[in-house]
Parts: sequence; C-alpha cells; structure tokens
Amino acid sequence: MEENLSKFFNYVNDNSQYLVSQLREAVAIPSVSADITKRPEVFRMAEWIKSRLTKLGADAKLVDPGTQELQGQTVQLPPIVLSRYGNDPQKKNVLVYCHYDVQPAVKSDGWETDPFDLVEKEDGRLVGRGASDDKGHLIGWLLTLEAFCKLGIELPINLLFCFEGMEESGSVGLGKVVADEANKWLKGVDYTIISDSSWNTKSKPTIGYGLRGNNYFSIDVSGPVADLHSGVFGGVVQEPMVVLSKLLASLVGVDGKINIPGIYDQVMELTEEEEKTYHKTSLTREDLENSLGGDYLMQKDVVQSLMHRGRYPSLTIHGVEGAFYDSGSKTVIPASVKGKFSIRSVPYMDPATIKKITVEYIEKEFRKLNSKCKLEVVTMRQGMWWYSSPNLRINVAVTKSMKRVYGTEPEYVRGGGSVPITMIFEEQLKSDVLLLPMGTYADGAHSTNEKLDKYNFIEGIKHFSALIHELSVL
Amino acid sequence: MEENLSKFFNYVNDNSQYLVSQLREAVAIPSVSADITKRPEVFRMAEWIKSRLTKLGADAKLVDPGTQELQGQTVQLPPIVLSRYGNDPQKKNVLVYCHYDVQPAVKSDGWETDPFDLVEKEDGRLVGRGASDDKGHLIGWLLTLEAFCKLGIELPINLLFCFEGMEESGSVGLGKVVADEANKWLKGVDYTIISDSSWNTKSKPTIGYGLRGNNYFSIDVSGPVADLHSGVFGGVVQEPMVVLSKLLASLVGVDGKINIPGIYDQVMELTEEEEKTYHKTSLTREDLENSLGGDYLMQKDVVQSLMHRGRYPSLTIHGVEGAFYDSGSKTVIPASVKGKFSIRSVPYMDPATIKKITVEYIEKEFRKLNSKCKLEVVTMRQGMWWYSSPNLRINVAVTKSMKRVYGTEPEYVRGGGSVPITMIFEEQLKSDVLLLPMGTYADGAHSTNEKLDKYNFIEGIKHFSALIHELSVL
Repeated sequence: MEENLSKFFNYVNDNSQYLVSQLREAVAIPSVSADITKRPEVFRMAEWIKSRLTKLGADAKLVDPGTQELQGQTVQLPPIVLSRYGNDPQKKNVLVYCHYDVQPAVKSDGWETDPFDLVEKEDGRLVGRGASDDKGHLIGWLLTLEAFCKLGIELPINLLFCFEGMEESGSVGLGKVVADEANKWLKGVDYTIISDSSWNTKSKPTIGYGLRGNNYFSIDVSGPVADLHSGVFGGVVQEPMVVLSKLLASLVGVDGKINIPGIYDQVMELTEEEEKTYHKTSLTREDLENSLGGDYLMQKDVVQSLMHRGRYPSLTIHGVEGAFYDSGSKTVIPASVKGKFSIRSVPYMDPATIKKITVEYIEKEFRKLNSKCKLEVVTMRQGMWWYSSPNLRINVAVTKSMKRVYGTEPEYVRGGGSVPITMIFEEQLKSDVLLLPMGTYADGAHSTNEKLDKYNFIEGIKHFSALIHELSVL
Repeated sequence: MEENLSKFFNYVNDNSQYLVSQLREAVAIPSVSADITKRPEVFRMAEWIKSRLTKLGADAKLVDPGTQELQGQTVQLPPIVLSRYGNDPQKKNVLVYCHYDVQPAVKSDGWETDPFDLVEKEDGRLVGRGASDDKGHLIGWLLTLEAFCKLGIELPINLLFCFEGMEESGSVGLGKVVADEANKWLKGVDYTIISDSSWNTKSKPTIGYGLRGNNYFSIDVSGPVADLHSGVFGGVVQEPMVVLSKLLASLVGVDGKINIPGIYDQVMELTEEEEKTYHKTSLTREDLENSLGGDYLMQKDVVQSLMHRGRYPSLTIHGVEGAFYDSGSKTVIPASVKGKFSIRSVPYMDPATIKKITVEYIEKEFRKLNSKCKLEVVTMRQGMWWYSSPNLRINVAVTKSMKRVYGTEPEYVRGGGSVPITMIFEEQLKSDVLLLPMGTYADGAHSTNEKLDKYNFIEGIKHFSALIHELSVL
C-alpha cells in the first residue's frame, strides 16, 4: 500500500499540467442544466464522460431519467452516467457521486475571462465555471482511476460512479434512477462518497456531517392583464410590484432573523458537545471577511457565523421575475411579478410545516395590505436537510487519509449548503455517506470567477487514492 | 378648402389598405433605441424616413447629435431628421414632432404575434411595436404630405418635421439640436405640434393641456464583492436584496400614497374651474377596468382616477437590476442590486426639491436599517412637467378640425405621461405647442401587444389634413 501510494503521488506531481489540461477540457463544455439552449451541451458532457470511462475499461452506461417541462417546452433530461470498475466480491463496493452540470455563466456578469475557458492564474487559481462545483471533483476521480490503470496498480476496491447532469436544477430524475438501480447496478454498495462540497477554511480540510435543506418559494403577485405605461397608469392602478416589495420586506430582518412565526420551533437544541466543535475551528473572522471583500457579516464572532451557516435556518431573497431587470430606465408598471426566496432548513425542521407556516404568514401579510392584486405562494421545491455522525467508519477512514495527504486531521462541520441527494443515497442504498470536499468555501461556486486552487486539485487527486486505500482495509 | 378636404378624405377612404401597408413597412424596422445591438436599425429607420421625404420633394437632412455612453460603450446617437416642405413667407410655419424609435419588444414577453410584423386583426387592431407609439403618428404625417402631393393640392402652410430617434431613451441630444437650429432650420416656427400622445377614451378625442414630468431613480445597494451561494453564506452575510426590499417597500403605499415627506407640498391647488373639466369626461370607470382586465383601480370614481393621472404625482416601482430575474430557482445571494423607481411630477413641483427630499428620505430609511451594505441613490434622469391653456389659438384650431373629422369637440385633459421635449420646443422656439393624439389610452404603449386601431389611424390622417387647413386660416 505504501509503495503504491508513493508511485501514485509521484505520478500526480510529475503530471500536474496534464491533469489540469483534462479539467480544462471538461470546463470547455458549457453544460448548464438550467438553460434550455444549453441542454445539448449537457448531453455532450455525458457522452464525453462515458467515452473516457469506456476507454479505461470500465463498464459504463447512460440511463435516461425521462423528460421535464422547462421554459414552456417538454425536454429530455440529461442521462445519469453509471459506471463500475471491478467486480471482485472480496472487495468493498465504493460508490462515488459527482455532477457534470454547472450553474449559468456569461462573461458580462463580471468574469475576468471567458467562464468556459479554464485559465490558470499566477496565484494558483484555476478559474472557470464548474472548476470547483463540480467538475474538479468529477475529473479528479476520472484521473484517479486513469492513474491506477496507467501505473498498473490494482484497484483495492470496486469503484462505482454515479454522475448526474441536473444537480444545479434540483436533481430532477435522480431519485427515481437510484431507486430503480438500487438492487441492480448499485446493488451491494458499502460506502457512498458524495464528492461535491468544500473546505470550510483555506488551510485545513473539512468533513461535513450535516447539510441544510432548501425550501424554495415564489410569491406570485398579479394585477392588470398586461404591463402598463407608468405615465398613463401611475397613480391610477394598484401595482403588483409595490405589493411584492412589501411582502419581500416582511420576510426577514437585516440581522437575518426570519419573521415567519414558528420557523425556529423545530430547530435541534445546541448541546455542549456540539458547541465545542465550533470553538475548535481554524476559520477566522478575517477569512470570512476576505471571501466577502469586506465586513458584511451578521455575527460578531466566527463561532456564531459557523452556527448560523450549519445549524440554524436562514432566508435569502434571490430576486424578482417579471419586473424590469435591465440597465437603463424603462417606465413600465409590471403586470405580474414573482418574488423568489428560499429557506435553508436544519434538523429537525419538517418540510410540510415549513411550507404551511410560510404560506400562511405571507397570506396573512398580504391580507393586511388590502390590495386588489392576486396572490399565490408557490412552493417551487423542498429538499431535506441531512445529519450524520463524525464516528461513522467511513469518517474514521477519511480522517486517516486526510492526515496522510494534508498533514492534518479534518475538521468536522455542519455545512450550510444543500445536497438533497445525500438523503437519496443513504435511504435507497442503506450505505453510510461521506461528504468529501476538494476545493474551499472561497471558490465562488455559483458566482462569477469561480475557481479551484491548483493545490486543492492536485492534492485532492492524491487524496482520492489515499482514501481508496483506507476504505479497502476498513 | 371644403373641396380640397373632400378630395383628401375620399383618397384616404379609397386607399386605406395602402396606408396600413406603409405603417407595416415602418414597424418592420426594429428601431429600439435602448438596445445597443439594435442601434443600426434606428439609423436605418432614419434613412428610410429621409428617403421618403426627399422623394416627395421636401428638403430633408440628418443632424448628428453626437455620442452617448451605453452599456459600457461609446455609441453614436441616432440622427434628428429635419425636413421642410414649402418656404412661402405668406404661409404659417408649422413644425411637427414625432419619434421614430420604439420600446424594446420580444415575442416571448407575451406578444400574440411577432412584434415587428404589423398584423391587422379582425377587431380592427393594428398590432405591432410602435403602431401607436409613435410610428402611427409619424407615418400618418408622411402619408398626409404624400396625399397632398399625389392629389395636387397646394399645402396651405409650410410644413416642417423634426423626428427624433431617442425619445424612448430620454431624448438624449434633442435639446442641443433644437437649440442649435432654433435660428436656422427651425427659424420662424409659428406652431409646434407634438404628435405623440393618445385619447383619454375610446370614443372621443382628447387634447392634452398638461403633462407630468418623470424623475427616475435607482437605489443602489451593494455588499459582498461577488454573488454568493445561499447555502454557504445564507444566515452569515448581510444581503443587499433584503435591504433593497425594505427600502422599496418604504416608498409608497398600496393605495398609491407616496411616503416621501414634502412630496405633495408644491402640487398646484385644485380650482373649481379645473375640477369641473374632470366631471365632463366621457371616460367611464368601466373603460379603465377594461383596459386593465379587471378592477385594479386605486380610486372609487373615474374623476378621482383622472385627477391622479394628470394633476397629482405618482410613484412606480419598475424592477430590480442585478438580482435573479429568470424563471427557475437559482440559489444566489446577489452581491449588488439596483431598485428602479420613478416619480411622475406635476405643476409646480421643482425637480431639485424632488431629488433632494427623495434622496434624503431613502438615506434616512437606510440608516434606520443599520445595515453594513453600501447605499447610493442615483438620479437617472429628471424630466419637467408641462402645463398650457385650452384657450391658446392652436387649441382653438384643433377644436374645429376635430369637430369636423370626429363629429365632436375634443376633451381637454391633463395627461399622465411625460413628453419632456414639450418644454424644449416651447422655450427654444417661443411657439405655442399642441399635443396631438392619434391612438387611445388603451393601445398598450410600452407594453406587449401594442396596437393602433385602424379607425384611429385612418381618421387620424384625415384629421391631420383638416388641422393643416384650420391652422392656415388662423
């Protein structure tokens, strides 16, 4: 094992430019799942992955999850890529999940360079859409398998992949495919690695043992039959945008406190043991400020910030659909507007309760306004939170492999994001789940100038091989 | 005069399909001034107009108003088309203003048909972008001149045109050109007709003797250096969109009452004489409801609605720039957002005062929020209101010509929209100004499915000739 790992590590060190070039090739495919015009690129990405796997000698197939309604059209969902390398009953079956779709990105949003051309900066950043979320992970795993093959090292586990193309759009179709394949292609999975998270600090790896759920709502306020001229109808007609502004303003305070009555009632109580874990953090308030470009933090100390990221709910207002959104000064009265917001949920908040009290609150606030406009509160999607334990065997293994590669044990934290599919794998495959990060919180996932530090990419690949070894001897 | 008018009216009746076809040709040029990619089409429209004028034997020239900054680029402003037909010192010099640019339009906004393909519907609507605002007027004037030429009727006035291509984008450059040409091409103008307004009812023509000004503001709230993932930073970072929602909500009530202290202080007091004019209206509450597709009116009776359209200020929230605006459910925390709103002003509100009390109010509301985000209130543009008298000679003339063509005297009303250039012509040319409408309030200017009723187009052209005759004998 030691000898094999040395060989692997040397290979990675000697071939870093090649490894980066493979990530560049993947980033160049603009596989944006939310954009109907980019859907063919998502399919192209799936074919690209399957072809690489097949070349390495893995069994691979594309599973069709069916269709979806998108922007008024019925469109084909991108396939789930399923793959297996090795079928030895003496070995552990380890399933790795990544996603090959990315968030939308256009250069004019403020990117330094073309978002779909991965650029290596002097400071070590690999800048490009999906570099960190989630193509860095996915390509890292492909390159790990490739390195085993090239070096002639026998893989000490059976390595299964499940790569989806709809993660950034609600993972539509994944649940059904995993359920269908649980007793077929995915039968006998011992451990599931979800490779789609990030370190909590820049200097120390992190293992998430909790995730927040996401409950996404749209406040639809409609009035006149069509948009109006604000000169002709301003002062005469009740304006949906005025109503919406007041409803959005009623949701949450500038201090982050959610105004929906009962929203905090089901939140898990803080134990002394859990509280201690936050105090061990190597993250500083300065780290957070740096990633924000200034002090825009709601909390005075980093421990409180970590708790509000991981163990308390939050409410974000994302934007407004249907109103004027461009630069310039259009004199329109929008006829129908949709205010989008979401609530991140934590143990033990119940989705049905969240939906009920949220809709009731908005309807009550709306009645107070005494408006002639129509209101509909739409629950766009609800994803469950996830909670695990740092004492699981798979977590013990990763503690060892991380110590070997990064020279330090990971911090165990509860993450703020949502990976709804964590629940799917845990429940359908009855396997323990590991949330394995490659990049850091500062990578700008979903944002402009998303990056993955070259250090994290290269060491991340080494770590994948180290983890494979640790899992094989569990 | 009677004989010539009969000839003209018969020609118009006999050639209505030809006249509509000429409007269709103009609508087909998507001369959207707000969109940098459409700027060449605005220039094409100007060339198209000049070429038609020259063919009719008019003197015509394109005046270059210089450049502007648009969407980060320096671009050429569309030309002002100046034209003169006739130079007889015994005749009155009558100047007609129209604009040849249009509001943006894309079919997916909810148009029944391609917005740049004028379609004649069975119910008599001519549907297309600019049909009513303002290509119907402009083409109507060109066709009026053409008819005089074709019929060999001597024009009893000297007819001057001033057509601009930036009206929908703040008339940038027009003021300077009119000032430059006041003692040259536009020297000696007796009357100015601004042909860019609409009837207040469907059945009775309207003459506007007042217009509201427009004061357009942007509330710029900025926070973190880049957009963030709401999972990773929700609950941790202060969100600009939360701050903006509260500021927008603080501006105006659902009942239309503006919350800015002092905003009503300078509004002209209502006299008994003025109040009487509103009670004479033929507009009904039902008319207004029909154009809105339901009862979304703020006022209980139509007299109050007309007052709030014409003689009281209003505040409209147009939308938000920088936030998520698409369909779907993007989990972004927008880093910087701009809330757009505008205040329609009336006599005797002073622009400097409006700006001062508006900015002060928003800054005060912002301080109350105690946010770490940055605020800047930007005054994007301010256009002055306009106020005239129904007893002006030019208004007496149009009362006669309208009675002849439409069989009824016009209603004199104060309009809700803003035509900032009204002030420019009045002040620079020292001429009385007439606001002459062709279509109706229900045409959906600036909205989807903008239309001009064929009746209004055809009778409008007849009326142009009748007005020319009345002006010639003033």
